[in-house]
Amino acid sequence: MKILIINGPNLNILGSREVDVYGEKSFEGYLPILKNLFTDLSIEYFQSNWEGEIIDKLHDADKNYSGVVLNAAAYTHTSVAIADAVKAISIPVVEVHISNILQREDFRHKSLISPNCIGSIMGFGLYSYRLGVESLRIVKEN
Amino acid sequence: MKILIINGPNLNILGSREVDVYGEKSFEGYLPILKNLFTDLSIEYFQSNWEGEIIDKLHDADKNYSGVVLNAAAYTHTSVAIADAVKAISIPVVEVHISNILQREDFRHKSLISPNCIGSIMGFGLYSYRLGVESLRIVKEN
Amino acid sequence: MKILIINGPNLNILGSREVDVYGEKSFEGYLPILKNLFTDLSIEYFQSNWEGEIIDKLHDADKNYSGVVLNAAAYTHTSVAIADAVKAISIPVVEVHISNILQREDFRHKSLISPNCIGSIMGFGLYSYRLGVESLRIVKEN
Amino acid sequence: MKILIINGPNLNILGSREVDVYGEKSFEGYLPILKNLFTDLSIEYFQSNWEGEIIDKLHDADKNYSGVVLNAAAYTHTSVAIADAVKAISIPVVEVHISNILQREDFRHKSLISPNCIGSIMGFGLYSYRLGVESLRIVKEN
Amino acid sequence: MKILIINGPNLNILGSREVDVYGEKSFEGYLPILKNLFTDLSIEYFQSNWEGEIIDKLHDADKNYSGVVLNAAAYTHTSVAIADAVKAISIPVVEVHISNILQREDFRHKSLISPNCIGSIMGFGLYSYRLGVESLRIVKEN
Amino acid sequence: MKILIINGPNLNILGSREVDVYGEKSFEGYLPILKNLFTDLSIEYFQSNWEGEIIDKLHDADKNYSGVVLNAAAYTHTSVAIADAVKAISIPVVEVHISNILQREDFRHKSLISPNCIGSIMGFGLYSYRLGVESLRIVKEN
Amino acid sequence: MKILIINGPNLNILGSREVDVYGEKSFEGYLPILKNLFTDLSIEYFQSNWEGEIIDKLHDADKNYSGVVLNAAAYTHTSVAIADAVKAISIPVVEVHISNILQREDFRHKSLISPNCIGSIMGFGLYSYRLGVESLRIVKEN
Amino acid sequence: MKILIINGPNLNILGSREVDVYGEKSFEGYLPILKNLFTDLSIEYFQSNWEGEIIDKLHDADKNYSGVVLNAAAYTHTSVAIADAVKAISIPVVEVHISNILQREDFRHKSLISPNCIGSIMGFGLYSYRLGVESLRIVKEN
Amino acid sequence: MKILIINGPNLNILGSREVDVYGEKSFEGYLPILKNLFTDLSIEYFQSNWEGEIIDKLHDADKNYSGVVLNAAAYTHTSVAIADAVKAISIPVVEVHISNILQREDFRHKSLISPNCIGSIMGFGLYSYRLGVESLRIVKEN
Amino acid sequence: MKILIINGPNLNILGSREVDVYGEKSFEGYLPILKNLFTDLSIEYFQSNWEGEIIDKLHDADKNYSGVVLNAAAYTHTSVAIADAVKAISIPVVEVHISNILQREDFRHKSLISPNCIGSIMGFGLYSYRLGVESLRIVKEN
Amino acid sequence: MKILIINGPNLNILGSREVDVYGEKSFEGYLPILKNLFTDLSIEYFQSNWEGEIIDKLHDADKNYSGVVLNAAAYTHTSVAIADAVKAISIPVVEVHISNILQREDFRHKSLISPNCIGSIMGFGLYSYRLGVESLRIVKEN
Amino acid sequence: MKILIINGPNLNILGSREVDVYGEKSFEGYLPILKNLFTDLSIEYFQSNWEGEIIDKLHDADKNYSGVVLNAAAYTHTSVAIADAVKAISIPVVEVHISNILQREDFRHKSLISPNCIGSIMGFGLYSYRLGVESLRIVKEN
Repeated sequence: MKILIINGPNLNILGSREVDVYGEKSFEGYLPILKNLFTDLSIEYFQSNWEGEIIDKLHDADKNYSGVVLNAAAYTHTSVAIADAVKAISIPVVEVHISNILQREDFRHKSLISPNCIGSIMGFGLYSYRLGVESLRIVKEN
Repeated sequence: MKILIINGPNLNILGSREVDVYGEKSFEGYLPILKNLFTDLSIEYFQSNWEGEIIDKLHDADKNYSGVVLNAAAYTHTSVAIADAVKAISIPVVEVHISNILQREDFRHKSLISPNCIGSIMGFGLYSYRLGVESLRIVKEN
Repeated sequence: MKILIINGPNLNILGSREVDVYGEKSFEGYLPILKNLFTDLSIEYFQSNWEGEIIDKLHDADKNYSGVVLNAAAYTHTSVAIADAVKAISIPVVEVHISNILQREDFRHKSLISPNCIGSIMGFGLYSYRLGVESLRIVKEN
Repeated sequence: MKILIINGPNLNILGSREVDVYGEKSFEGYLPILKNLFTDLSIEYFQSNWEGEIIDKLHDADKNYSGVVLNAAAYTHTSVAIADAVKAISIPVVEVHISNILQREDFRHKSLISPNCIGSIMGFGLYSYRLGVESLRIVKEN
Repeated sequence: MKILIINGPNLNILGSREVDVYGEKSFEGYLPILKNLFTDLSIEYFQSNWEGEIIDKLHDADKNYSGVVLNAAAYTHTSVAIADAVKAISIPVVEVHISNILQREDFRHKSLISPNCIGSIMGFGLYSYRLGVESLRIVKEN
Repeated sequence: MKILIINGPNLNILGSREVDVYGEKSFEGYLPILKNLFTDLSIEYFQSNWEGEIIDKLHDADKNYSGVVLNAAAYTHTSVAIADAVKAISIPVVEVHISNILQREDFRHKSLISPNCIGSIMGFGLYSYRLGVESLRIVKEN
Repeated sequence: MKILIINGPNLNILGSREVDVYGEKSFEGYLPILKNLFTDLSIEYFQSNWEGEIIDKLHDADKNYSGVVLNAAAYTHTSVAIADAVKAISIPVVEVHISNILQREDFRHKSLISPNCIGSIMGFGLYSYRLGVESLRIVKEN
Repeated sequence: MKILIINGPNLNILGSREVDVYGEKSFEGYLPILKNLFTDLSIEYFQSNWEGEIIDKLHDADKNYSGVVLNAAAYTHTSVAIADAVKAISIPVVEVHISNILQREDFRHKSLISPNCIGSIMGFGLYSYRLGVESLRIVKEN
Repeated sequence: MKILIINGPNLNILGSREVDVYGEKSFEGYLPILKNLFTDLSIEYFQSNWEGEIIDKLHDADKNYSGVVLNAAAYTHTSVAIADAVKAISIPVVEVHISNILQREDFRHKSLISPNCIGSIMGFGLYSYRLGVESLRIVKEN
Repeated sequence: MKILIINGPNLNILGSREVDVYGEKSFEGYLPILKNLFTDLSIEYFQSNWEGEIIDKLHDADKNYSGVVLNAAAYTHTSVAIADAVKAISIPVVEVHISNILQREDFRHKSLISPNCIGSIMGFGLYSYRLGVESLRIVKEN
Repeated sequence: MKILIINGPNLNILGSREVDVYGEKSFEGYLPILKNLFTDLSIEYFQSNWEGEIIDKLHDADKNYSGVVLNAAAYTHTSVAIADAVKAISIPVVEVHISNILQREDFRHKSLISPNCIGSIMGFGLYSYRLGVESLRIVKEN
Repeated sequence: MKILIINGPNLNILGSREVDVYGEKSFEGYLPILKNLFTDLSIEYFQSNWEGEIIDKLHDADKNYSGVVLNAAAYTHTSVAIADAVKAISIPVVEVHISNILQREDFRHKSLISPNCIGSIMGFGLYSYRLGVESLRIVKEN
């Protein structure tokens, strides 16, 4: 079972960006820990600041992965195109967020992507990814 | 570590209510399965259709539990009083929903309770509760 | 054929409350008149100011009555939980209102409960209940 | 006691129009059944797709009928002019709708005409007309 | 100089309709008084409850009159079609209202027709027509 | 194959009305040119400023034509009744507009009729009608 | 009969300000012409750019004039205080505007002052004042 | 003169709840101080987290008290039912709030209950109750 | 302890203005009564219809008074400038209103000034000022 | 005459994506059929999921093509940048959509691009492209 | 070249007012520094808390200055009258703000004055004035 | 001191695009003039139509430049991702616009990027860039 984690814009600088909101750990630093928790799974990681590249990757994932854990970051709130891509593919996509987006600015309260995902997990810091991978395993196994 | 699961209005008739949305299994039927998955935890369950009773229970939980998994159901969208209670207590509360509330009627898109919870999980059917308990264990252990 | 009439908050003080809007007759005073008009039916009556108690009663009615005439009063405009309960049960529910809610304050124009009822009747004073019972009989007989 | 039933636009093709919403029976087919139920009343019927003609008829009814059962159909949601006509005349007007307009498109949720009617009845299919006539008889007799 | 006064829906029953708002005098009763005040002008009068007929009359007026005094009544607030007709013709149109529409229901606050008229006069009772005719004479003479 | 072109209010004075928006050619002047382009089709033309008459014509067209090209003009933005009529009939209706309605006033941006048409074409001047007829031929042939 | 004309902010520079909207004539230049038209009346004129001074003047007018013609200019759209002053005094106040405020920016469409005036006249250029004075004479004489 | 103080949801845990907003003193701790200030009055206290119980208490108070000081807390913003109860009874009700609700979240800015109270007092911490009792005494004495 | 009472626009004509809303007593008539109730305090009074003068006075009060009781009247709803002045000074300001502004027009429901005051009191007629002075004394003493 | 067809995000997977909305045919499969219908024109095709690449292509098209048929897909509703690019170039751009966007989710009802196109065609499935090419030929020839 | 700097309400107490937002320096303290930077220009300064006085000054500036640097402070968000005055005069007006108004309360996000200024500069503290004067010099010189 | 100027979409065709709004000079033509004005600074220039590329560049600038002058063009109004990137980096970013965006279409009135910039300058044509560079120098030097 192969799972792809996709991170959207500005998540490449996690750890240095707004540390009071996002914490001081980079995702690259967290990834080995995450992989160790799920040694029975193949977990791959992709990050891009480019909306179009994320869409291309989602199309590509449809053929090569069992499911996607997607943190679309800022594009969560503005990208109908990514939301359409999530809907267009047939593998399950789980939406995750590091912070609780409902505790932040109004424009972050609305997710265009949620309605097309099988489920959403937010607010648990980097553990949101762990719960996201877990949720895909549960869904796949049941 | 003691965890309390609180279910809000109409979740006592889960299994017979709108089965295309909520599935055919009652929560009482699922509870033993859930407990079996977390044998190291003490999990208790409470359901009420009464807003005031849920508030009383949250106040009470503050002294007697390590955390709460809360599915406030319809009160998610209308109860400032329950949201205030979640904020007023000091143990962590995780919000869960069986369905993906963003795929349903407009009035279900807004959660008054989310901003006061440590995190939210929705859309995974009854597995949302499993992920909710899991998230509390992760938060408590880290 | 057993029919349950449920009255929501503040309808227990009908007759003394805002008499220019609701009239001077209490519902308890009207009930015998109503029963006399439908001697072939068994009509029972329940009133509560408590949202949760109304939900409990609706769940209960599903097993014990042929239909419900519901005047949810103020909860008409605020209770997603009662609306969910109406949707969750399988017997027909008819919504009634004493006054024409569209002639009153803006916040009374919107009924959360209407979409889940088989039909709505409003504005005929206490006769709205008579028409409500009548409508249940027609629906059941046809 | 003479009662006039007025049907608005597209109700002349009832029975062939969107049968899943409005049913397969034409109003012309239902009218004799309705008259048989109220043999003590004189019931007349008028239908028009023309807003102005409905206003003319309402003015005319003021002198010649005891009351009106009005299904303004699409004009319910757009015609201030018909609403004004209902308000301008002195005989009672009851609003009826075949479907539950609150279960349909947003633009059908608002009735401009309701505030000027003595009462509203909706969602009971063609039986809404029967209840409408019944309500006029009750109001007149009491 | 020929002037056409056009009255919209329900103004044919002025004098009997909502007398607290519109007064007890019919327009037909006022017309001779108005004509006497402007003996140098030819004043004609047209009333219709039909939106389409008012549009036809406006098209027709473009060839046969020097200006129009228009009280579109309820159509003021709903008819883009009449507003378009006013814009489409080249003679000046003055908008008049008997009542002060800004003191009444919200839906009467907005005039679709105003932006296409040379000016608007409202709130002076039947004297609004007198001021409307006067305004056309002033505009024409200057 | 018989096609009916229906033009709504104020399109009878095309050519003299707001020539900067609608051009200087009347529809009557364009009709022979249009017919010459589609000699294999029978094209008939109907114009009315009356909402009710357009509804009657649409009902009538259902039995006598293969499809309708409809420019409802101002009624596009206000007539639920015409939109209902389009939905109620079974032949295909194509919506056309001479101007690009999204470049004009806000109240012209919303079409109530679009959702019930098989397709919409706007902004090509009188050529919109040509494309509308063409589209009906394509839809019918495929 | 003494009439006071009150002009609000920026009307002191009429004639040099946005001449395409307001024309090239100053109000001071127009005043003698206006007085000549109403030689039987005593007309006085007051202009201020200060909201408070206009309120003071309105209070003062209540004791010293028979009526007020008020062009509150920009304060029309923002001053609840002037609107309250108009309501607080007992002499009739007529609202006038040089331009048709409904043809201009959105924020000029709403008049806070209209609901408290006996009537409104707008769009006739400087003739609006003439019609305003005329309307006061008519109201006073009838 | 008997006065009833009613506190709504979560006010039972005042003193431990969000102490930066509500302070560190419980209401139970403050009550004796308050009673000492008004030794000529009989002051009783009631708290509930249950909307229905507050309504019942208001009905009951109508017969047994001279006035009510009501802090409906979260129900201030959501309960039409409590607002209706306040309107339905005939003794004066004064609304109080510990914090200045206009300095907090948007959903706390709107009070459904205010329009039915004789007056409102907010922002003075626990002193709001003292001013509330004082205001009832003043109103009763004058 | 010196307290300044500031009254905003149109409160100089209290007693003659809309007596059903504001009562028949002028503030000047009430002031001696108020002073008699607080003989231990020095109370001064200032009224202006001018927004700028009220701002100047607030700046001035910061150096010369212990606190301000402010009824900004109409400026309550429109003046960001007065709200800024209240925020800019360091002495406590209490907002008072004679009427219950939430029972009146929509545009009076919103106070721009409330968030910057220590507390608000409204609806008690002229007694609101008495409670306002009382509240300042309590705040100062505690 | 060279025409460029530009397809936006997710249209590269047409035929496998939401087949009930978009049909089972890929655009690549349709392109030869389209070219055969317009053998006198040179038709080229470009697709990208990247907003920036579409803008680059539009700039480029300005120098190398006679016109563009643009289906911006999801970017239709979110991209001011593409709308600006359409406005910035001088060749005609026709907007096309496969589905009737007004029959779908609310966020698809608004096109940012329409106001800058010469015209729009939507709802005819893949035939929308055929009508789009046709419309460019008509516009160019006339 | 003479330049006038106009400061609106509450800017006379800069330095003592909300120092975390506006800094600790008064404008009077900054003015000599500013003049020293532009020794080739004549810079004059005017401050008022009175809306009307600012309008008078703008009218006056039109004859006596080459340009205006305007910080209308709170009036930025509420004064149509000042915005009209800026539009009515012919010399260039540059809008400046000390703070970044888009980082503050919602009601400060909207500037009524911006659309009538040649440009806007905000967020640079007192340096905004320096950039404002600089911009006027550039505009005048080019 | 190294400064980076970043231009967003469609600014590469400045000079040929909507010349009435943006002028006839390309930015490339203006750049040498700008550099000549600031010979003590190192100014570099970057333009992209790609949202993702602008984000990458902002991340990169954080390490290599002292500050950024950013004209995000259309992305100003739609890109939460660029706004996040501006917030995520630690060097100062100044927002500039050639035109006064508040004088243009409604959707250009809102800047998502402003709240994260140290300041904003708009409306001075290409001089906005000069003022932007100047402002960075001032901020850095003070």
